[in-house]
Amino acid sequence: MNRKMVFFTLGQLLLIEAALMVLPLIVSLIYRETTVFAFLITLAATALVGGALMFFLRKHNKTMYAREGFAIVAISWVALSLFGALPFFLSREIPNYIDAFFETVSGFTTTGASILTNIEALSHGMLFWRSFTHWVGGMGVLVFYMAILSGSSEKSIHIMRAEVPGPIVGKLVPRAKDTARVLYLIYIALTVVEIIMLLFGGMPLFDSVVHSFGTAGTGGFGVKADSIGGYSPYCQWVIAVFMILFGINFNLYYLILIRRFKAVLKNAELWVYLGTVFAAIAVISFNIYSMYGSVAEAVRNSAFQVASIVSTTGYSTVDFNLWPGLSKTILLLLMFMGSCAGSTAGGLKVSRIILIFKMCRNELRHLLNPRTVNVVKIDGKQVDGATLKNAANYFSLYMFCFAAIFLLLAFEPFSIETNFSATAACFNNIGPGFDAVGPSANFAEYSLFSKLILSFAMLLGRLELFPMILLFSRGLWRKK
Amino acid sequence: MNRKMVFFTLGQLLLIEAALMVLPLIVSLIYRETTVFAFLITLAATALVGGALMFFLRKHNKTMYAREGFAIVAISWVALSLFGALPFFLSREIPNYIDAFFETVSGFTTTGASILTNIEALSHGMLFWRSFTHWVGGMGVLVFYMAILSGSSEKSIHIMRAEVPGPIVGKLVPRAKDTARVLYLIYIALTVVEIIMLLFGGMPLFDSVVHSFGTAGTGGFGVKADSIGGYSPYCQWVIAVFMILFGINFNLYYLILIRRFKAVLKNAELWVYLGTVFAAIAVISFNIYSMYGSVAEAVRNSAFQVASIVSTTGYSTVDFNLWPGLSKTILLLLMFMGSCAGSTAGGLKVSRIILIFKMCRNELRHLLNPRTVNVVKIDGKQVDGATLKNAANYFSLYMFCFAAIFLLLAFEPFSIETNFSATAACFNNIGPGFDAVGPSANFAEYSLFSKLILSFAMLLGRLELFPMILLFSRGLWRKK
Repeated sequence: MNRKMVFFTLGQLLLIEAALMVLPLIVSLIYRETTVFAFLITLAATALVGGALMFFLRKHNKTMYAREGFAIVAISWVALSLFGALPFFLSREIPNYIDAFFETVSGFTTTGASILTNIEALSHGMLFWRSFTHWVGGMGVLVFYMAILSGSSEKSIHIMRAEVPGPIVGKLVPRAKDTARVLYLIYIALTVVEIIMLLFGGMPLFDSVVHSFGTAGTGGFGVKADSIGGYSPYCQWVIAVFMILFGINFNLYYLILIRRFKAVLKNAELWVYLGTVFAAIAVISFNIYSMYGSVAEAVRNSAFQVASIVSTTGYSTVDFNLWPGLSKTILLLLMFMGSCAGSTAGGLKVSRIILIFKMCRNELRHLLNPRTVNVVKIDGKQVDGATLKNAANYFSLYMFCFAAIFLLLAFEPFSIETNFSATAACFNNIGPGFDAVGPSANFAEYSLFSKLILSFAMLLGRLELFPMILLFSRGLWRKK
Repeated sequence: MNRKMVFFTLGQLLLIEAALMVLPLIVSLIYRETTVFAFLITLAATALVGGALMFFLRKHNKTMYAREGFAIVAISWVALSLFGALPFFLSREIPNYIDAFFETVSGFTTTGASILTNIEALSHGMLFWRSFTHWVGGMGVLVFYMAILSGSSEKSIHIMRAEVPGPIVGKLVPRAKDTARVLYLIYIALTVVEIIMLLFGGMPLFDSVVHSFGTAGTGGFGVKADSIGGYSPYCQWVIAVFMILFGINFNLYYLILIRRFKAVLKNAELWVYLGTVFAAIAVISFNIYSMYGSVAEAVRNSAFQVASIVSTTGYSTVDFNLWPGLSKTILLLLMFMGSCAGSTAGGLKVSRIILIFKMCRNELRHLLNPRTVNVVKIDGKQVDGATLKNAANYFSLYMFCFAAIFLLLAFEPFSIETNFSATAACFNNIGPGFDAVGPSANFAEYSLFSKLILSFAMLLGRLELFPMILLFSRGLWRKK
């Protein structure tokens, strides 16, 4: 690969991270917290390293292929997390650096799994930074980079393919850079609307901003030990609805903006997604009704938890670990599905599951009639063979990775249910799992080794496997 | 499909089943048990229905395509189980017919999951029949049919493809019928050797025969509540070794017979299988050492349980549900892998996992170098695209089916671990799972609805998905 270019880009990205850190710095100043220094030191260090990389590698060949796209994405996400963890560590609010790294990876990958046992003890600056990483990681650090910096279109599309989740990455508008801008504008608009609606429900400004960041990125970091449980039913409903909205492909919002409503209504992924969400809410409401006694409460708790899991956010209003087996099983399966491609959510993505499902149906048809040729169509368009093969291989690789992570966690003294759901929760970027990592618990009890494994799992899931796995391939690093 | 021919063949198969039932009848006579009548009535009814089908459908078109192969396999396995359940029901040894059906499906599919709470109360005739269904189901009822009845070669290969497990079904010798005979001769020879070796270790004749049937079919039904735990270490080792042997592709035994040793040594699946088995034994021995105190005992218990799970047999010598998390996690993952294609074992099959692994590796290579063409080779031979596609789709379909079965079990009041492992244990034709369906427990507590779901899961797993799923397809039943 073109190493100089890759690390030059990393330098640019570190400068962006330093710039982004100005926001939590301001928050710290407003609340007159001593964490100001932690942010200042980190900001300086990040800017220094970023600037140095840019300065020393300024003379580089601009050639960019798919491999450089994967390399930039994988390396920069690790590096941004390494630097992003410094404020927690330097402020001693998370005294162990690996813990701080876990928390930051969990932030950027929009997982929301935490090692903090007392969230409410955190300073405002840190709480803000934690949720802000969700917001930045949700739409993608590199999509942000593309939106603000000019670069060749060739470069942009390779980065976009590597960072934006889903089996098919399309450009909304001819230039990838403009696509990135459109995506960020929609993202900002939706976030602002959520903040306003939460303020309207009486949630304090700081909480509204932090929770809107957490919802927009489908992350799940909050400010309270009981997550969203302490807020009013109105606020819970607002967050539930926005979690579902942020799980929808952003391309559809763009289509709505340019008034192509028919295309939105014909989107198969959207309907499967919404259909699954509503079916799950209905069944779980019925299943948990006896625990809450009122229909309104049962439906609200069901809707919130389903929205949270399916959008891979991870907020909670009740401890769903105490729910009956049927509800837990549905949530566990939803963890794997995730939401729509091109959203900020994790998981396998609905469109990928539709693709794979159609491939299986074709295989069955082929077995019955070996001579007929079957094609897979999505929204009326035929999907090409390479995309199908990629989706099938992605699914297999996903399962292999899952098994490997689950096995590596087995050294822990936890139950199978804990380790299995911890793997699912981190790998699919959700946050809480069941049993010892349920919504009322956290990941603090895991060993440092397991925390590193889970950090890797979160990155693996957020970047959709390939970039992180290729990082270990000699083929990626070889000079051409 | 050609319905007349399919049901004519079913008639032939029912006659074979009636003939096979003479053996447990003889056992009942020897032990002077009243179960004689249950076998006599079943035998008569089965023969009558089989004979009637053959008589009324004797004029049929002999045309046979892949669809007829799937139909014969799926329909006959269900029908053989329905009739095979009658002796348990008629003798009142299993008073509920659905329970008896579950037990019989578990027998034919070589699962070994039981609803019996007191195995030792069963008559010798029933114990023999239970294990004999393992032996018949292990190599395949239809392979047996092919071995003893002549039929067109075209017919045979379609049946063979539909019944013999594994991604690539090859004929050993030019005619499928001769292949079936060779397979059964090897199968009988190995079974007899095991019986002799167990007798040599002081195991009573009846127990030796029953356990050898259970091992050969990789089933797991025994005669004692503590499975193999009460027998001598020598007997435990014999069964452990034979479980591993019956998990090996029978083609390799044929290659040994015709002295093509090099081909055996070059078999990738064999080495991955044995490598995984020994690695698992080593890690688990180490992990459970403190529970048993002596190296010999730890290794023996580890080897036995690993061999039992990986070969999908399901015998046990200790309650592995009490083992530490690492050992349980390894066993859980081995449940999915299973053994070699072309063996009597269940699971995904090692060769299929190798194929899928190589496809994933090629996908990663393709991402790095989009212009190079990558082929998948197994044992030096290139695997064609259709086989690869089939393997990938099989894997996806397998996971979808797994999720569906797991979801349908969620109405039970059991833990996630119980339902998950029950699904894995039945779908992969193993038998015992963890927690409430662990080796010292059974499936009696499941509702009748769940028992039917699990019976379907066992058939789905044994017949490798496609035949059972196609049974629900209008395309299969349509007249051409």
